[in-house]
Amino acid sequence: MKPEVLLSRIRVVLCRPSHPGNIGAAARAMKTMGLADLRLVDPRRFPDPEADARATGAVDVLESAKISDSLPEALTGAIFVVALSARRRDLGPPGGQPREMVARLLAQAEQGQVALVFGNETVGLTNEEIQQCQAVVTIPANPEFSSLNLGAAVQVLCYEIRMAALAGLASPADATATPASSRMATHDEIEGMYAHFEAVMTETGFLNPAHPGRLLPKLRRLFSRTRLERDEINILRGILAATRSPTGHARGKPPAT
Amino acid sequence: MKPEVLLSRIRVVLCRPSHPGNIGAAARAMKTMGLADLRLVDPRRFPDPEADARATGAVDVLESAKISDSLPEALTGAIFVVALSARRRDLGPPGGQPREMVARLLAQAEQGQVALVFGNETVGLTNEEIQQCQAVVTIPANPEFSSLNLGAAVQVLCYEIRMAALAGLASPADATATPASSRMATHDEIEGMYAHFEAVMTETGFLNPAHPGRLLPKLRRLFSRTRLERDEINILRGILAATRSPTGHARGKPPAT
Repeated sequence: MKPEVLLSRIRVVLCRPSHPGNIGAAARAMKTMGLADLRLVDPRRFPDPEADARATGAVDVLESAKISDSLPEALTGAIFVVALSARRRDLGPPGGQPREMVARLLAQAEQGQVALVFGNETVGLTNEEIQQCQAVVTIPANPEFSSLNLGAAVQVLCYEIRMAALAGLASPADATATPASSRMATHDEIEGMYAHFEAVMTETGFLNPAHPGRLLPKLRRLFSRTRLERDEINILRGILAATRSPTGHARGKPPAT
Repeated sequence: MKPEVLLSRIRVVLCRPSHPGNIGAAARAMKTMGLADLRLVDPRRFPDPEADARATGAVDVLESAKISDSLPEALTGAIFVVALSARRRDLGPPGGQPREMVARLLAQAEQGQVALVFGNETVGLTNEEIQQCQAVVTIPANPEFSSLNLGAAVQVLCYEIRMAALAGLASPADATATPASSRMATHDEIEGMYAHFEAVMTETGFLNPAHPGRLLPKLRRLFSRTRLERDEINILRGILAATRSPTGHARGKPPAT
């Protein structure tokens, strides 16, 4: 696949950015590396003259940016989502360094839309937001001062993306993991499956909503280690649905999601 | 040689920077990657509150920055100097991409002090300044918009420097390894889980044993793409068991396998 096509399938999502200047810097960083699809989740100030000023020649990226109320909305249709996190999390999707994670991201971009998610400048991403991603990338920064500027972090990741796209690099493991013919599940389909699991677990008393513990994060961690196909989600949801059917019998095919 | 020692031998030189904010951004970018030696050649405004503001926690790098009147002064003592240039020059030192040039820079840093030189935001480096360097590095940017912000360019190069300096110290496999505390599932535990799935699927009518189709192979394919932990198997089997409990209620912990 041509690098330009691959790059066009990568969206950059900024969650709750505080400073419009950083939104402009991110747009500029993206455009210098050939990316154009910017999504903003609940930005504090946008549009804003400060964003335009820092974007310089990338104001077109700002003008075509899509604004969402929530992260799931911004991720609709994405088949693979990587979150940037400054620190390792105990329970969460598998993590790695930029080069490795960008190779995985590009391998997935061969199959469909993918996303790279950045958190707020001060507080980063919440654990709940991280749980919605399939992988976490950490820039191996100075442990004594690891706080990259948001625009600078976008620049580093987009640079790695461009380098890998130009080199034709894609993680062989991921590229061969799934036949090209199979249809990757989208973010919203995967979230639908988790909601289904939660409903069945609650209904059967396996999960106490008042004291959920770590059951759901652990389920997410398990399934985020692999790229789910739509077909597989249909099977899992079909099993769940069949167990709740009044007759204990599910007719026909697994339900479409 | 230790990465910290190598990094301490690399100076970042900014020639005639116009905007103090970019000096602050460069200082921050350097410190996040473990660099500290900043040299400023004829800065338009420095020190400046805007530089401090953009440096955030890297004000110490600004405070120890050395100011020179000329590039040769800033390069005194350096045994190898690489210039950043947005474009190839017909006549000039040999050029290359960041990864290649950073490798050369670090190889030289084993022997002594080295420098990375950045030009003015608008006009870059003069041919005369470029001629004072032993090599030119070009970031392979979007040909239609190749103008990286100065701080962002410093971030990209310092990031490559840190990655190269740390290389060999951290195995990428480590990054994705499962924490030692978690216990991998054994073959028989995994087979027990598949048997449990099959039993529930058959009992609910989701699977017709006379015509099983590809349901079970597809489940195996899904779970075989990741290394399951015993804990995860307990959760999945717990969910399955809870759905078949006569009261629809599973007490206590997920069952041991």
